[in-house]
Amino acid sequence: MQTSLRMKRSWTTRRDEKSRRMQAAQCYMKGKLVDAESIVKVLELLLMPGDRVVLEGNNQKHASFLSDALSNLDPEKVHGLHMLISSISRPEHLDIFEKGIARRLDFSFAGPQSLRMAQMVEDGKVEIGSIHTYLELYARLVVDLIPRIALVAADKADREGNLYTGANTEETPTLVEAAAFHDGIVIVQVNEIVDELPRIDIPASWIDVIVETAETYQLEPLFTRDPRHITDIQILMGMIAIRGVYERHHVQSLNHGIGFNTAAVELLLPTYGEQLGLKGKIAKHWALNPHPTLIPAIESGWVESVHSFGGEVGMELYTAARPDVFFTGKDGSLRSNRTLCQMAGQYGVDMFIGSTLQMDAQANSSTVTAGRLAGFGGAPNMGHDPRGRRHATPAWLNMKVGNDPLVQGKKLVVQMVETFQGRDKPTFVDTLDAVKVGERAGLATAPVMIYGDDVTHVVTEEGVAYLYKARNPEEKRAALAAIAGVTPLGCGHDLSVNDRLRQEGLIAFPEDLGVRRSAAKRSLLAAASIEDLIEWSGGLYKPPAKFRSW
Amino acid sequence: MQTSLRMKRSWTTRRDEKSRRMQAAQCYMKGKLVDAESIVKVLELLLMPGDRVVLEGNNQKHASFLSDALSNLDPEKVHGLHMLISSISRPEHLDIFEKGIARRLDFSFAGPQSLRMAQMVEDGKVEIGSIHTYLELYARLVVDLIPRIALVAADKADREGNLYTGANTEETPTLVEAAAFHDGIVIVQVNEIVDELPRIDIPASWIDVIVETAETYQLEPLFTRDPRHITDIQILMGMIAIRGVYERHHVQSLNHGIGFNTAAVELLLPTYGEQLGLKGKIAKHWALNPHPTLIPAIESGWVESVHSFGGEVGMELYTAARPDVFFTGKDGSLRSNRTLCQMAGQYGVDMFIGSTLQMDAQANSSTVTAGRLAGFGGAPNMGHDPRGRRHATPAWLNMKVGNDPLVQGKKLVVQMVETFQGRDKPTFVDTLDAVKVGERAGLATAPVMIYGDDVTHVVTEEGVAYLYKARNPEEKRAALAAIAGVTPLGCGHDLSVNDRLRQEGLIAFPEDLGVRRSAAKRSLLAAASIEDLIEWSGGLYKPPAKFRSW
Repeated sequence: MQTSLRMKRSWTTRRDEKSRRMQAAQCYMKGKLVDAESIVKVLELLLMPGDRVVLEGNNQKHASFLSDALSNLDPEKVHGLHMLISSISRPEHLDIFEKGIARRLDFSFAGPQSLRMAQMVEDGKVEIGSIHTYLELYARLVVDLIPRIALVAADKADREGNLYTGANTEETPTLVEAAAFHDGIVIVQVNEIVDELPRIDIPASWIDVIVETAETYQLEPLFTRDPRHITDIQILMGMIAIRGVYERHHVQSLNHGIGFNTAAVELLLPTYGEQLGLKGKIAKHWALNPHPTLIPAIESGWVESVHSFGGEVGMELYTAARPDVFFTGKDGSLRSNRTLCQMAGQYGVDMFIGSTLQMDAQANSSTVTAGRLAGFGGAPNMGHDPRGRRHATPAWLNMKVGNDPLVQGKKLVVQMVETFQGRDKPTFVDTLDAVKVGERAGLATAPVMIYGDDVTHVVTEEGVAYLYKARNPEEKRAALAAIAGVTPLGCGHDLSVNDRLRQEGLIAFPEDLGVRRSAAKRSLLAAASIEDLIEWSGGLYKPPAKFRSW
Repeated sequence: MQTSLRMKRSWTTRRDEKSRRMQAAQCYMKGKLVDAESIVKVLELLLMPGDRVVLEGNNQKHASFLSDALSNLDPEKVHGLHMLISSISRPEHLDIFEKGIARRLDFSFAGPQSLRMAQMVEDGKVEIGSIHTYLELYARLVVDLIPRIALVAADKADREGNLYTGANTEETPTLVEAAAFHDGIVIVQVNEIVDELPRIDIPASWIDVIVETAETYQLEPLFTRDPRHITDIQILMGMIAIRGVYERHHVQSLNHGIGFNTAAVELLLPTYGEQLGLKGKIAKHWALNPHPTLIPAIESGWVESVHSFGGEVGMELYTAARPDVFFTGKDGSLRSNRTLCQMAGQYGVDMFIGSTLQMDAQANSSTVTAGRLAGFGGAPNMGHDPRGRRHATPAWLNMKVGNDPLVQGKKLVVQMVETFQGRDKPTFVDTLDAVKVGERAGLATAPVMIYGDDVTHVVTEEGVAYLYKARNPEEKRAALAAIAGVTPLGCGHDLSVNDRLRQEGLIAFPEDLGVRRSAAKRSLLAAASIEDLIEWSGGLYKPPAKFRSW
């Protein structure tokens, strides 16, 4: 034995350092409370150069007071931070890099700041670690990116420091857990401090510093799609999807993306789906935020359960009044959990169906387009076949091809795209812009959102390509081209193979599915406007001002 | 619009039903507390026939008092339950099916009861839903298997009902969350009720019923491997793995299975790894339970962090004294979290390395062998390439084959097996027993643990097969056969192709890796016994009695 190799070292350096920093900030604290006006001073005492800092920013909910405070730190005192941020959405998320307060960035999504981000990466102002899915980033918080500091947001705190995150629990518990249980410092902004919380979402002993803010944290109604903007083409695609995918494969549990395509499906279930006699047979269990466009399907009895990543502004009263469907706490309000719901969307559902901006002829797709380093949030996590899955459902088994006793089923990964993204902008391209963007940003791999190998179906206004049946790249390309319309990919397609592709079940056109193009009218939607959704909800849905046009 | 389709129904049926049942049990309750002797009566009031019930049973920690109580219910009153149990380990887990109290079962692992389980399935006494990985089962708890009742275990509760789960937090918070936030009833057995908890792991408002038990919940030291039983062959395999996999691919973050093979690696790092100058270069971040055999690597400075699924009996003081390495709470004791750690093991690490009982010539493997319906716990979840992963690490990038700009890296999935499981029992077989077992049990797919498509490396005492480089099934078979020794697979191998396979990097023998077979001796282990581990730990490791041989 060689116990002489035992290191003489302290094994409590993180704990000691936390204690030292908390001590230094004591003069600004009453218990765990810090005044809003002292926050910059306090952060300058609690953060040290080079610290790894996780900052809460889902695509909807942002610790906006704390991110703003961060951008006001003195770069002489605090610089070179390594930031971990799910969603780069606010200007100050990048300002801190301009100012040198931060240096390195690991993130998941940067939609609203993707143009500036790409520029800053090229200029060497941001050093990118990696682009992640949400779950990956959370996973690394307990492996090799353990945060020293967590900056998060909650609705309310009580005087002991317990937190109420209410409908927007989101990623807060996961970020807090990673820091709190590894001697990190957890700093929370709350909208309000109260004597008694409606319920406790995070126990006080996990929290170090609480600051009550004058303004509430930023919260965006990202999952609200106004039915007024749903087009006849999207309705046609919705009908094709319902018949050609949901019905055909008995899809009972699913995640929907946030596009108008899937909003159309939600609004077709109570009408078109009802006519087809599909109620109770498909689309019963959902992993998604409380989409207002799902209200008619819920009210007409289609939906058995919804588990949510986060809340949705305006849906608070409605979700609270439908506890048989939504997850709610003892206080009656929605309980969301981004980590659990992503896990559910990855492992627990039959189908992911989403959209994309570009797709190549092998069905690789990305929302990263020229000059924009956008990332993809949760889509890749849900938009792949989880090979660790071992349980079977009818839809999953339906994807089995061949008779080998070791062949598995598959999760359905469906992309629903119009053939054009706008005049002269075909969705189907030779090479994804992501390849070039990735090269310019020096990424180790191209920022592909969903790999073609994982895509089982593509739906366009022309029909469905059943890619899971394609035996080789040529067949895959042909099936895609057959539904690619007048895009270059479609125009180059040899129409004479279509009959064979149809017979072999590699493609289906609306007529093969019993879908009448002429029936694809807005009158088929269960709700044609936000007002209609309010009526369906019995007045419980309270849309934010920007969706009120009356 | 067709709001006439709105259903006239109650949307609070679950909440009302919970309230009705809780009311009925009130006469046995003081606040949330129930006496141990009343538990059967209380369960007969809280459970109804056909209920979906999640019962805590990880492979280590079991709500043993509650499972025992369950088996004493009157089947006239409570029958046909649908049980969700991670790990079927205790006799009463199956007794309840014999008695008719339960009917349907969804589970993950059934090692200790696998023989009886297979028999009961054949006899029609248990109706199997599916075999899951842990994460899948947790995911379905919020999708299509939402529990009506949760039966879980914690160390302590306070009088309000807050829970302390301490080192063995495990899956408790996840099971509780799924029930508590969907009007399920959460029933907890605790070892002790105290005035003040060391820390709060689960808030009181998530809990409905608490029962203090005379005996503590069952807890097994499943991750303890006595170094005394590590053989020279396992040491040789450990050396081959360190040079041929860990070092070659720069593996920095990883999960280890619980076999003696990986225990050997843990004990070789401070000696053999040190000689090779690998400290600080490999095996820095770990997702695994506090293995006692990891103590020497920790003490000699190899390990930067460990996140754990659960605790390990005897490691309490040691983990509490090493908070720079382990996740701990403010009370100083270990914080584990099975869900987060499985997520970390799936998405956040470079490598999974484990073992198996059978492997076919395409590297499909299973621990399900003739007559035993064992399931596999977390192995498939960690033992696959997570296709939703988008972040890059050196090891992951090292798995790239070819120059296509869309080619990704891969997670390393390594199987480490001796060529024989015992005299006359080759590890390599033509067809996995799992195929037949699956057929007899009427499973939709064969219970394969890890699919060959996901296995990047196989290590035997003969060498390493670099399967990720194989271009076709023939090459894969040849690479495996080259390291399959005198098993039928190995004996049928054409030795003349070995030189080509070595040149192309498809296989490596010890001599190719600079590993001297003669150096593979027990004297190379950093600890040769449990006593040695205690000494390494400075007396902090307190092994359970069954591991004390002195």
